[in-house]
Amino acid sequence: MTTVQPIAWSEAGVRILDQTRLPGEEVYLDLETVDAVAEAIASLRVRGAPLIGIAAAMGLAAAARDRAARGTLPPDWIAEAADLLEGTRPTAVDLRWALDRMRRTGADGCATGLPAEEVARALHDEAQLIWDIEIGMCRSIGEHGAPLIEPGSTVLTHCNTGVLATGALGTALAAVYVAHEEGRGIDVVATETRPLNQGARLTAWELGRAGIACRVIVDGAAASLMAAGEIDLVITGADRIAANGDSANKIGTYALAVLARAHGIPFFIAAPRSTFDLALASGAAIPIEQRSPDELPTAPHVQVYNPAFDVTPAELIDGIITDAGVLRPPLEEAIGEYGGRKVESP
Amino acid sequence: MTTVQPIAWSEAGVRILDQTRLPGEEVYLDLETVDAVAEAIASLRVRGAPLIGIAAAMGLAAAARDRAARGTLPPDWIAEAADLLEGTRPTAVDLRWALDRMRRTGADGCATGLPAEEVARALHDEAQLIWDIEIGMCRSIGEHGAPLIEPGSTVLTHCNTGVLATGALGTALAAVYVAHEEGRGIDVVATETRPLNQGARLTAWELGRAGIACRVIVDGAAASLMAAGEIDLVITGADRIAANGDSANKIGTYALAVLARAHGIPFFIAAPRSTFDLALASGAAIPIEQRSPDELPTAPHVQVYNPAFDVTPAELIDGIITDAGVLRPPLEEAIGEYGGRKVESP
Repeated sequence: MTTVQPIAWSEAGVRILDQTRLPGEEVYLDLETVDAVAEAIASLRVRGAPLIGIAAAMGLAAAARDRAARGTLPPDWIAEAADLLEGTRPTAVDLRWALDRMRRTGADGCATGLPAEEVARALHDEAQLIWDIEIGMCRSIGEHGAPLIEPGSTVLTHCNTGVLATGALGTALAAVYVAHEEGRGIDVVATETRPLNQGARLTAWELGRAGIACRVIVDGAAASLMAAGEIDLVITGADRIAANGDSANKIGTYALAVLARAHGIPFFIAAPRSTFDLALASGAAIPIEQRSPDELPTAPHVQVYNPAFDVTPAELIDGIITDAGVLRPPLEEAIGEYGGRKVESP
Repeated sequence: MTTVQPIAWSEAGVRILDQTRLPGEEVYLDLETVDAVAEAIASLRVRGAPLIGIAAAMGLAAAARDRAARGTLPPDWIAEAADLLEGTRPTAVDLRWALDRMRRTGADGCATGLPAEEVARALHDEAQLIWDIEIGMCRSIGEHGAPLIEPGSTVLTHCNTGVLATGALGTALAAVYVAHEEGRGIDVVATETRPLNQGARLTAWELGRAGIACRVIVDGAAASLMAAGEIDLVITGADRIAANGDSANKIGTYALAVLARAHGIPFFIAAPRSTFDLALASGAAIPIEQRSPDELPTAPHVQVYNPAFDVTPAELIDGIITDAGVLRPPLEEAIGEYGGRKVESP
């Protein structure tokens, strides 16, 4: 199976797939400065929380190598570069996690008096490690999730949770990719995912590149496909999971969970354990970002209510597929046991 | 309450609101020939099954008056004009019904040897009658539906079922308009209605023009608003209702019905009795139109599944608001009693 490569090291920097041009055009950009990487993140050329963190770390490392080759690599330069990159998407947890690791690596190298080239090498290795952690975590999610997908199944998914979001196999899509690798003969139904169409634009495109059959539907059509017996299970990602298992994810996920239950179809969430926020007792405590009305084309002066996420209560979730295994109801207990462990990955 | 006027008689023809320009621009076009009216219908400048029928009849009448003023109004001219108009949207039942009435009126007038101007006058009166029937039917639906809407309620609706679709108060929106007229202090949540966005483009616009508060949401956000207790009832239209009450309507309606039931929210269908198709025992017999994949923007070669309608089973419907009253479960019995009567209107 060949998946698309949304990020790679290039000769003098990092090479990214410009996701704003998808699915119409497949354009790769070589980014050689911190400013260029910051621009790519801010303008959503690189998107998906994990991939943003990886891109920022790799971009910082590549620019540091260039800086070191021209003489010095002062600790202030590293700190300022990290601040600039972190400011592009202030709410992205993975971005902060990745840049904190890069700051620490840079500061440690400088403090111990390593030559500039050695510090740059350490930053490169750290960025690669951040990427490798993501790759390993996604692979684990995929391997735990794939056995849930019976041969010949049709999987319904929402939004984009795959290679384009993570620079690795993804979360919900990791299970799909591994099931496909294992020759289970599955296919996918991708919801369009309004208002930003990540399903229609990104999921369908990356599955097509991997040779996995995929049909796109409008979000409102999921119910009639379920009623027709055409959906065997639903797997979505999650942005934040409370201690009791209530899960926040892209708007429209909760509807799919209610509909799946009404039609007797299993509903799974796939997410790394780092998605658990044990400080939150339940989904009621998860803040829901309200996004710009401009994302919906309507008349001027029309009021638009545009929440980015909704919360699916734990009782509608048949399991949470994590990098440490599938957590089954009662989710509160399962999360307490697995999610409570100290996790090194973001 | 002032609603928008999507159609009107003009000096030398009919004046239509060009709905393809909404909601950005409010452009009215004076159409003075059968060809111009046919073009407006075919290109969706005029849309909504009832409004198409009214526009075709009025356009034919206006062109006939012009033809008569220039000398003769042969029966063949009337028949050919009706055929041309009917060919614009071959599956629209209201269009065929309206044009059959116009054909009969024209043929009767010619057969009894009336002067051309008298035939043209009869055609004008018939077109006005077709419009008046629609106005009366929508008003009846509105008056039967409004009492279902408690003061201060928030009504969720789907697609566009109002003035822009009918040239009158509409079906689901008729209940909203009458409740607003009665000062019930209601507001509306309109789903965007993918893939063609009739809710965001048309419903929000026409409610705004009538001074009714309306918020637009993506289709996938309806569930979380229901869970938050922000929706008091759901009313949608219907395209076809089987003898047992199963109702076909715009894709996404069935999901709203399942979600409403899961949240304990009443779900109503509003439609004239002419929507009943008593030849169909159940919704399983209702043919579902598959529409072009081009309605969903996605990558080339991506498969798109784009059904225009879905079927809501009778057991999820708390009532069907018709021009003859609200039919309550068991719907099969209620439809047998009311829907079985001979109905003069389309």
